[in-house]
Amino acid sequence: MKLTLIQAVSLSLAAVTASYAVADVPVGIVIHGGAGTIERSQMSNEQQKHYEATLAEAVNKGYELLAAGGSSLDAVTLAVTVLENSPLFNAGKGAVYTWDETHELDAAIMTGHDRNAGAVASVTTVKNPILLARAVMEKSDHVMLTGKGAEQFALAQQLEQVDNRYFNTEFRYEALKRAKQAQQPLPHQAAIVPDPNWKMGTVGAVAIDSKGNLAAATSTGGMTAKRWGRVGDVPVLGAGNFADNTSCAVSGTGHGEYFIRYNVASDICARVKYQGKNAALAAKEVIAELLQAGGTGGVIVVDAQGELSWAFNTPGMYRAKRDQAGTVIEIFADESEKAGN
Amino acid sequence: MKLTLIQAVSLSLAAVTASYAVADVPVGIVIHGGAGTIERSQMSNEQQKHYEATLAEAVNKGYELLAAGGSSLDAVTLAVTVLENSPLFNAGKGAVYTWDETHELDAAIMTGHDRNAGAVASVTTVKNPILLARAVMEKSDHVMLTGKGAEQFALAQQLEQVDNRYFNTEFRYEALKRAKQAQQPLPHQAAIVPDPNWKMGTVGAVAIDSKGNLAAATSTGGMTAKRWGRVGDVPVLGAGNFADNTSCAVSGTGHGEYFIRYNVASDICARVKYQGKNAALAAKEVIAELLQAGGTGGVIVVDAQGELSWAFNTPGMYRAKRDQAGTVIEIFADESEKAGN
Repeated sequence: MKLTLIQAVSLSLAAVTASYAVADVPVGIVIHGGAGTIERSQMSNEQQKHYEATLAEAVNKGYELLAAGGSSLDAVTLAVTVLENSPLFNAGKGAVYTWDETHELDAAIMTGHDRNAGAVASVTTVKNPILLARAVMEKSDHVMLTGKGAEQFALAQQLEQVDNRYFNTEFRYEALKRAKQAQQPLPHQAAIVPDPNWKMGTVGAVAIDSKGNLAAATSTGGMTAKRWGRVGDVPVLGAGNFADNTSCAVSGTGHGEYFIRYNVASDICARVKYQGKNAALAAKEVIAELLQAGGTGGVIVVDAQGELSWAFNTPGMYRAKRDQAGTVIEIFADESEKAGN
Repeated sequence: MKLTLIQAVSLSLAAVTASYAVADVPVGIVIHGGAGTIERSQMSNEQQKHYEATLAEAVNKGYELLAAGGSSLDAVTLAVTVLENSPLFNAGKGAVYTWDETHELDAAIMTGHDRNAGAVASVTTVKNPILLARAVMEKSDHVMLTGKGAEQFALAQQLEQVDNRYFNTEFRYEALKRAKQAQQPLPHQAAIVPDPNWKMGTVGAVAIDSKGNLAAATSTGGMTAKRWGRVGDVPVLGAGNFADNTSCAVSGTGHGEYFIRYNVASDICARVKYQGKNAALAAKEVIAELLQAGGTGGVIVVDAQGELSWAFNTPGMYRAKRDQAGTVIEIFADESEKAGN
């Protein structure tokens, strides 16, 4: 192999990979607050309104920033921060419990024009993990930092620290107890049906700004009762989070292990880039294949033309989108039919 | 969106994703011991022979296992274990030092017929991290475990533990000192040229067995002088390690941050799967684009037809392959020209 040959190929490929958009394009943002067994029968009107109001706050803040000429990077950061600060979702304040009754949080962020990225795994004292992921991208030479080391970096970056108990919520503690009981039934004890959502829950946002640049951000508390420093798909770039101006930006939520094995986010983008597929169709295909393999979850997607979409194979996904066509806020699967998605 | 529609799509896709091979096919294996600024002028004949002998041992042990009807999973595990146990390579025994003068090891393994996978990051006391990655794949519900938690799992799996000092080598300690000096020049101190390989070094293997099943395994000590729990591309499935019977199996080595951002391993497989490209060509393209972006490194590849190849954009890559056509063991870039690669 000659380096000169490689360099020649590189140059011929430069046109293909050049990805800075130039023209003003309509802006848009999609967010999610996790997919799972979310059913009308188990949610009061009041709860539903609470979820919808928080989704509205996140999507509107992100959209207003974009409409004012802000970057997709800033918009997804802001939207995810709103969701992290809410106890309703499994990220930041509402993070699930580990087996040891603590909280270990993961997050990732990526920009599509330069494919720059930052990710953190198993952090315990950073109030907003998405801000730490962004600092990793912008302020370090690295892409992925983990555990105590990541927290030392957060301290050096003067990010807001909290005691791990800040993430405590009664609702999630009850979920931990149910998950533990389901995993360790006592002799003669009747089988306990585990919370069907104990493997689920994540928040995320994808956006396109007026320069046509894409970005994706995702944050999670991971899986209830996780052990052994388990890390899910979120900080595995290409699995639960991906952005590339030449195809699309994706944020995922679901059973993380399947998202990693099926490389969900980057597979959607690869079908757009190499098969010329519409991003919404590519997302539907990949989420269908995931279900075929036994994996449940969903994704939100924005493509380089600004089309916003989502796909999921669960009874519900907390989700919202806003572009020049208006705002959609939904929770249950049948609402998507109504809206024609 | 209707679940029934998704299920219908899933069924129609099942034929495409069915990936168990049935016929007996010629077996083959490719291994690498890292890519970087490896130059003849800086290597004695004796050193070269030492490297070549260890590469030969690893590739031959893997090949003999395949020829005897063993699985690609067992072959890549065995080959990587040989390389981990050698002090010559930046994995296992020869792992580089962190900033804090310890060793934190990463590894990943994946099987192409079921896309099952296991990965570990930042482990410090497991003699062979590749065996822990395999245990994560086979003995846990998870794909990725990190840090102390991963070590608790290793203990439960009765994997061989060592004191972190087992990984100490004088050669790597000198490299750490040079890297630290280069990163923190004292006032009035002349600039120190860092070791050009301080970001590099990994071992890996990819193989195809007589059932046509692919597997990939990769292990590394990461980047010299790494801090903050930095994790590179190896445990990020799709970046430095990937296997899928419908396309190819890839193990990478190089500047991990670029491998993550460019999703190198799964991008090569995506070009094979969606563009119908030859895997060797796809690898050359992706490694060329990596260089264009500023990233150096290389990959080894085996496709579903058993073609073995490698591509790298550095002056050298420790590498070897063996199939029915014979054995090739090389170190420098110009040797590939000789061999027609």
